[in-house]
Amino acid sequence: MMQDVFQLIARAQAEYVRCIDDGDLAGWPDFFVDECIYKVTTAENHKRGLEASLIYAASRGMLMDRVASLRDANIYERHAYRHLLGQPYIVSEDLDVVRSETSFMVVRIMRDGTKSLFVTGRYLDAYVRNGNSVRLRERVAVCDSSRIDTLLALPL
Amino acid sequence: MMQDVFQLIARAQAEYVRCIDDGDLAGWPDFFVDECIYKVTTAENHKRGLEASLIYAASRGMLMDRVASLRDANIYERHAYRHLLGQPYIVSEDLDVVRSETSFMVVRIMRDGTKSLFVTGRYLDAYVRNGNSVRLRERVAVCDSSRIDTLLALPL
Amino acid sequence: MMQDVFQLIARAQAEYVRCIDDGDLAGWPDFFVDECIYKVTTAENHKRGLEASLIYAASRGMLMDRVASLRDANIYERHAYRHLLGQPYIVSEDLDVVRSETSFMVVRIMRDGTKSLFVTGRYLDAYVRNGNSVRLRERVAVCDSSRIDTLLALPL
Repeated sequence: MMQDVFQLIARAQAEYVRCIDDGDLAGWPDFFVDECIYKVTTAENHKRGLEASLIYAASRGMLMDRVASLRDANIYERHAYRHLLGQPYIVSEDLDVVRSETSFMVVRIMRDGTKSLFVTGRYLDAYVRNGNSVRLRERVAVCDSSRIDTLLALPL
Repeated sequence: MMQDVFQLIARAQAEYVRCIDDGDLAGWPDFFVDECIYKVTTAENHKRGLEASLIYAASRGMLMDRVASLRDANIYERHAYRHLLGQPYIVSEDLDVVRSETSFMVVRIMRDGTKSLFVTGRYLDAYVRNGNSVRLRERVAVCDSSRIDTLLALPL
Repeated sequence: MMQDVFQLIARAQAEYVRCIDDGDLAGWPDFFVDECIYKVTTAENHKRGLEASLIYAASRGMLMDRVASLRDANIYERHAYRHLLGQPYIVSEDLDVVRSETSFMVVRIMRDGTKSLFVTGRYLDAYVRNGNSVRLRERVAVCDSSRIDTLLALPL
């Protein structure tokens, strides 16, 4: 039975953030298809159409490299995230591609137990649909604030 | 096909907050029917049954006036919001009116990039249903805290 | 008509947090079956498999006792919560038991109106399903931080 697209995307989002928040970063690239774009930018840059971005990866291989470098820098050890997402807004739905927008809020928990509101923003996503399974072809994370400590950041 | 009411309200909420958070305030009144109530109050006042409210509008025309005055005061420029909503709780469902309650949390992002937890609370909503489309006949935003900088606020 | 399990859990979660956030604590134990486990622990302890927990109750009767003691200590009066939950992630689904994980974020609002990000974490739940109604057989609230003022806490 073909699932409702709203449900499908909502579940995919829940699974995605669970992967990151549980610290299973090695599994993160699997939410993307091989030829994909993952980009973190600011609302300011996005609005002006500027190409500048804080993080940019143009393939699943680059995402795997990023995970490896975070592991080597022991980023895993230093902090954890807790993502809270809004309901996805379905922008368009073709036979095999679903475009959606979803608000996010991420709390960062440091090793000493302190926590802070790390970043808020919205995901601009393009999902490739294959039956009842979806994978990201593009995720642009547009952060509301331009003050983000991205160098040391886990994926959004 | 008639959509499930829970889905219908969840989608309407996602669309509503997207409108505000993306800065498209001119579109905000369109989420309401012509004869509507939009009210912002505090949990304290609401509990005691006090009529006093922080913001009160009794028609869609008044909502349009409010948008115009926010624009004239350049409120648009000064900050942005990021809403995160909980799942809607369906209180009652008649042939054409759906009552629901939904928790909200709003982060405010100032122009200089600083962000803060602006307000939390719950929406007490009455939606008029027309097939698979819904519009608000009443939204009472009950804020948990009584310390809110509402004069300069974008809509909740 | 049998409801979709994802919807069923999402609604149960919305109802649960509404009960606590609206201050109707007396109704809280009714979300659990008689022989149940309610536990609050930290991510650190959970990861290491330590049994130590911040709060532990092994029956619905113990939950009722807890509610009574919170009332006697006037905890009700001192503060309120606002829960925001993520989408539930369905871990497994048997004939009559559904296991799910759900992220949570709780803001605490003190009587003087100040609010703070109180705690984040995830619920590890086992729900007993009976037609379209579900009740908790087990809820383990795993808090991201170990710095929690739990003695005076309302339920998570």
